[in-house]
Amino acid sequence: MNRKLRMGMVGGGKDAFIGAIHRIAANMDGLIELCCGALSINPEVAVESGKMLFLPEDRTYLNYEEMIKKEAALPADKRMDFVTIVTPNFAHFAPAMMALDNGFHVVIEKPIAFTLDEALQLKQKVAETGLTLCLTHTYSGYPMVKQAKAMVAANTFGKIRKVWVEYPQGWLSKLSEREGNAQAAWRTDPKKSGKSGCMGDIGTHAAHLAEYVTGLKITHMCADLNALVEGRALDDDGNVLLKLENGATGVLMASQVAAGEENGIRIRVYGEKGGLEWYQHEPNTLLVKWLDAPAQILRAGGNYGDRLSSFATHNCRTPGGHPEGYLEAFGNIYRNFALTLSAKIDGTEPTKEMLDFPGVEDGIRGMAFIDNVVLSGQSTEKWTPHTV
Amino acid sequence: MNRKLRMGMVGGGKDAFIGAIHRIAANMDGLIELCCGALSINPEVAVESGKMLFLPEDRTYLNYEEMIKKEAALPADKRMDFVTIVTPNFAHFAPAMMALDNGFHVVIEKPIAFTLDEALQLKQKVAETGLTLCLTHTYSGYPMVKQAKAMVAANTFGKIRKVWVEYPQGWLSKLSEREGNAQAAWRTDPKKSGKSGCMGDIGTHAAHLAEYVTGLKITHMCADLNALVEGRALDDDGNVLLKLENGATGVLMASQVAAGEENGIRIRVYGEKGGLEWYQHEPNTLLVKWLDAPAQILRAGGNYGDRLSSFATHNCRTPGGHPEGYLEAFGNIYRNFALTLSAKIDGTEPTKEMLDFPGVEDGIRGMAFIDNVVLSGQSTEKWTPHTV
Amino acid sequence: MNRKLRMGMVGGGKDAFIGAIHRIAANMDGLIELCCGALSINPEVAVESGKMLFLPEDRTYLNYEEMIKKEAALPADKRMDFVTIVTPNFAHFAPAMMALDNGFHVVIEKPIAFTLDEALQLKQKVAETGLTLCLTHTYSGYPMVKQAKAMVAANTFGKIRKVWVEYPQGWLSKLSEREGNAQAAWRTDPKKSGKSGCMGDIGTHAAHLAEYVTGLKITHMCADLNALVEGRALDDDGNVLLKLENGATGVLMASQVAAGEENGIRIRVYGEKGGLEWYQHEPNTLLVKWLDAPAQILRAGGNYGDRLSSFATHNCRTPGGHPEGYLEAFGNIYRNFALTLSAKIDGTEPTKEMLDFPGVEDGIRGMAFIDNVVLSGQSTEKWTPHTV
Amino acid sequence: MNRKLRMGMVGGGKDAFIGAIHRIAANMDGLIELCCGALSINPEVAVESGKMLFLPEDRTYLNYEEMIKKEAALPADKRMDFVTIVTPNFAHFAPAMMALDNGFHVVIEKPIAFTLDEALQLKQKVAETGLTLCLTHTYSGYPMVKQAKAMVAANTFGKIRKVWVEYPQGWLSKLSEREGNAQAAWRTDPKKSGKSGCMGDIGTHAAHLAEYVTGLKITHMCADLNALVEGRALDDDGNVLLKLENGATGVLMASQVAAGEENGIRIRVYGEKGGLEWYQHEPNTLLVKWLDAPAQILRAGGNYGDRLSSFATHNCRTPGGHPEGYLEAFGNIYRNFALTLSAKIDGTEPTKEMLDFPGVEDGIRGMAFIDNVVLSGQSTEKWTPHTV
Repeated sequence: MNRKLRMGMVGGGKDAFIGAIHRIAANMDGLIELCCGALSINPEVAVESGKMLFLPEDRTYLNYEEMIKKEAALPADKRMDFVTIVTPNFAHFAPAMMALDNGFHVVIEKPIAFTLDEALQLKQKVAETGLTLCLTHTYSGYPMVKQAKAMVAANTFGKIRKVWVEYPQGWLSKLSEREGNAQAAWRTDPKKSGKSGCMGDIGTHAAHLAEYVTGLKITHMCADLNALVEGRALDDDGNVLLKLENGATGVLMASQVAAGEENGIRIRVYGEKGGLEWYQHEPNTLLVKWLDAPAQILRAGGNYGDRLSSFATHNCRTPGGHPEGYLEAFGNIYRNFALTLSAKIDGTEPTKEMLDFPGVEDGIRGMAFIDNVVLSGQSTEKWTPHTV
Repeated sequence: MNRKLRMGMVGGGKDAFIGAIHRIAANMDGLIELCCGALSINPEVAVESGKMLFLPEDRTYLNYEEMIKKEAALPADKRMDFVTIVTPNFAHFAPAMMALDNGFHVVIEKPIAFTLDEALQLKQKVAETGLTLCLTHTYSGYPMVKQAKAMVAANTFGKIRKVWVEYPQGWLSKLSEREGNAQAAWRTDPKKSGKSGCMGDIGTHAAHLAEYVTGLKITHMCADLNALVEGRALDDDGNVLLKLENGATGVLMASQVAAGEENGIRIRVYGEKGGLEWYQHEPNTLLVKWLDAPAQILRAGGNYGDRLSSFATHNCRTPGGHPEGYLEAFGNIYRNFALTLSAKIDGTEPTKEMLDFPGVEDGIRGMAFIDNVVLSGQSTEKWTPHTV
Repeated sequence: MNRKLRMGMVGGGKDAFIGAIHRIAANMDGLIELCCGALSINPEVAVESGKMLFLPEDRTYLNYEEMIKKEAALPADKRMDFVTIVTPNFAHFAPAMMALDNGFHVVIEKPIAFTLDEALQLKQKVAETGLTLCLTHTYSGYPMVKQAKAMVAANTFGKIRKVWVEYPQGWLSKLSEREGNAQAAWRTDPKKSGKSGCMGDIGTHAAHLAEYVTGLKITHMCADLNALVEGRALDDDGNVLLKLENGATGVLMASQVAAGEENGIRIRVYGEKGGLEWYQHEPNTLLVKWLDAPAQILRAGGNYGDRLSSFATHNCRTPGGHPEGYLEAFGNIYRNFALTLSAKIDGTEPTKEMLDFPGVEDGIRGMAFIDNVVLSGQSTEKWTPHTV
Repeated sequence: MNRKLRMGMVGGGKDAFIGAIHRIAANMDGLIELCCGALSINPEVAVESGKMLFLPEDRTYLNYEEMIKKEAALPADKRMDFVTIVTPNFAHFAPAMMALDNGFHVVIEKPIAFTLDEALQLKQKVAETGLTLCLTHTYSGYPMVKQAKAMVAANTFGKIRKVWVEYPQGWLSKLSEREGNAQAAWRTDPKKSGKSGCMGDIGTHAAHLAEYVTGLKITHMCADLNALVEGRALDDDGNVLLKLENGATGVLMASQVAAGEENGIRIRVYGEKGGLEWYQHEPNTLLVKWLDAPAQILRAGGNYGDRLSSFATHNCRTPGGHPEGYLEAFGNIYRNFALTLSAKIDGTEPTKEMLDFPGVEDGIRGMAFIDNVVLSGQSTEKWTPHTV
């Protein structure tokens, strides 16, 4: 590849949270440049945001339809390579479909769509077009999460018996959606967020992490979902018992009313011979525990690099002790997507490490998780199957 | 009180684990002396253990019946004041009843009995005799657990919304009961341990801790109990969704097959304004989290003592930074029991801090927990009421 | 500002460590673009590195003289705005002087130069030209380090009495400079690194951090410097007693032979009323300790943002619990440098938060530190003054 | 041994801090009983304290001379076996000498005496009498400190190169000796405490720990001692550079004005292949770091017990995850002293694990440390030899 990939962004105007994160993640490694955007449905915000990001005026679009149409008409050496969609959940599907239809690869902020049906249509479209769809399940971008997955896959711990995954946040402990908090407003609004609040927003991350690390699918769920803040329209808290495909048991706990918690996603997995623990607040550490030996502290970029999986080392930018964080994990997803796309453009074969980023199948599992966990929450039966 | 209290011990011979712990806890504060024992059902072990403990030969008894009968016949200034029962679960009830019938106070290693019915009989007997029964739910003896309870009781966090309590151990990750491990053998044998393994052994501790700290009763449970090690006769792992009486939700996780874990009991509680976290591996710390302010690290014996609850400071022996541990928590239960008994003997009123040790009501809740959690585990209904 | 700033890089070819870090830091926020480079003194490496970084061929230069000369000749809307120098220590001065002489602003990897005299010449040149020189003392870019500085400056802890700063690494525990480790080779070679190894490389970071956080100058040092690995030409370890200008005492410990340590820079400061602790391995946390109250855990991007200093919040990109790390701290230095430069170009006043990046004065203190700590290490007198 | 050892106590009346600690430590394992005491120089306090401790009136003495004389006159099966001295520093020597002269073994709270000369006289007396003297350097009683020592002794880390030992406390951050704090009053009074405050009180613990763990003697010191609180008569803070006998370097930092710190003694040792870290706040953990492999978390009572040194396991009372603390470490010193004494009485050979408690040689090193560190603090020379 002899150039940066060109990115167009849908959503992510000047006051949005996640759009700025996507841009940092995409900028970081010098493989991608932002070339155009439809940054807001508010025209003034769209224009102003384009200026702030130094976009040319003629590529600062007022809506995604315009962007996709006009970019498609540009010469190949100028037009964008892919579209990144960072709008609220209800506005993921339409721009994604149109982008694919016009030959653009797509990156979508999670969840992939508003409904499972949309997700399945996207899968169909991706299959038809042969284009690449990347879903930013950030937590799977951390090198030590990849190390965890690699160790489990290598049968390091024997058969996996237990998974505990938790994701406590506290930022919705008050009825902030009524106090002018825009983030809170759309995330707790069924029309914009979907049929679940907490489970859709962060429960899906936890479920993805559990399946990603263990390599096992969740087959049954028993959910207790609640809106613990009075007046809230969607669940803000939930605890879910899990069964996994190999007979392992598990618990998934997610909350947005764990007052005083920040963003504490953590996973613990136990097998016959030992277990592992990873916690986002100290993401460069993977704690590995043994039945018959002292626990070990594995570190990203460690000076015992040859003992780390190639999936971990491929996703480290610094030597041990120079902490990388959330933005680098996010950046790894963009970097692997970009390396894969570049390889395709160059006609070479991307490595398995490059290909390790979330895609349309992860999106479908996520939408089915939301459907099934809500179903289980409403059921008086103990177990609800988790099928797509 | 002008003398130490005299303790007789049932069980706890030379190879027993928990008997030695009880003796250290009772010795520690110089308020109690071991004066006699029926230390083993094996006469040789009983005699040898008596020698090791420097007991006089004539007070080294061969069984609890002999001990209680002969001690009861001794003059008041010589005979034991109370009996401590540290036998396996199935052998708690009979010596406890006989001791109470003969005028002796009783300390019992948890669980209080083999069945709920036995526990209810003990309650009746305690009521009739006016004697004191103490149950060694160790974790409620830690000063920072008491601090947590006091802060919740003072409404520090507003209404409690969530409780997460977990108790991972890994020591039963193999089928050790078939490999000559005596502890494993009786604890996984339904005839000696009761109808539950993991939930009876450590799940009860977790449930007790949750109710103790929050001051709220669990009203409903949804349990997934499993024997994850093939060939095991009782559950060795379980995850339980909880409903509490004020509408709070919760999760209780306990496992004896979390390979690599030691004895990691931990509780997290969240209310409207903040939350708390206590973890036994660092028991002198209580982490207090706030919705709108930085988290605080409260420390046992801290130099800001007047800000700690009197329940916490009463149970500290050292200034901050001189770590106290499991044996001191255990010792606090003995110390408070001894102070209460001494006050009764002296005809004075024990303080509320002295009276804060687990008793027969805690034992009944524990037996009902075992019954109900097993029932829930077998049910296909989501929720099973937790009633006594 | 309606465009990105244009950066030219000296050094940082494909196998260099710190050059890649500088590029990520500069890319991250979308304020800077790499437009040209003299990436290696090896022409093949220079060309190959330029390709990897997608530089145009005509701006891939073979040495810095060529780069500066040719860029100076480009039209203003095309030529670079500033030069980043990431060569080994001995090759900082010449390109920096030539860049300044040709009207380019400069970023220099620490230490600023090879000798104190060079540093003083740079100061003179900066004064003459009115250009901006930025020195990448990374650790001062962390938001919680800035928070620490702000709290000390606000007299939060009363008079500062003590400073402990430590910087343990282990990567030079073997004689790696003889085993083909290029990093080790130049860093332990007096001709390339300067008169000190460990103290020059990381001791300067520690000294800078101590002075930055406390706002106090070190006035006297008592150093014990050693080459603990046999055969090494420069110090690889040192412990230094400090006196600070207000009468505070301190210790600075740095080592590259603390086997098993990664990059553990940590600072603790104590005043009359409390103290603080910051540790790079968990850089988003500032532990604040009080004489008469529980310790507090301040967190970057915390949900109590208004209680954090504007210097901290200005340097956070994510909300609490989304860990930022070393690259973001590095990025903050570039971002503040870029914002300051942009303000200058726009004719506006940079804020005090933007201006808070290390510069030529920090570089001079660093060179004087190296001189004086080496002098003290050779002296039999206890105290050596730390003067420039 | 067929009985408990009988202990007489000098000092430790009802308001004393350390006397109560000694009693808990001695009680804990059921090997020792308190049989008599001269608990205070205030007769009322002495009598009242005796009552509180349930001592018989005729063995509640008013001064140590009376105690030693009268106890010596009792029949062998009744009289005390040893004397524990827990008075302020200036009052250690006289009762210790008189006890030894009268055939009683001795336990002394650290430091052993008021001057080095007294310590040397005690050594002479111990040699003459063949009696046992135990000095309670508590920190060497922790099982994971013993593990650390054993690993270094086994050359696990190769040649030791570096030692960092630190002991921060904050409790003397104010001039508390003028505000009615009795502990502060005698500890900062040269007439009662000796020629050093902080270094005598806690610096000696740090020096002992460093020599104990490394098995290396400190040969030279370069000390910066200060009274950082205005008006204080003795040093309350000090930083000391160290040279050790094998060429290793080190730093010892101790402070009683590190505001907000509790009692944070910590040691880090580095050798050619790795290092170790032990911190009293989490005393059941020994962190072991490797140059070429992940760090390991060794735990007291771990389930990999055969991999722990016999010195560690001999000093654990509980299985892993049941935290033991300061009182148990203190108890280990009493327990080993008691087991050694019992073996002597029984005519058997104490094991090397039993014999591993501090004694008169440790006391002499401690007194010499105080002399030499004060000398160094006053010197303008960099290095002062540490000789006895």
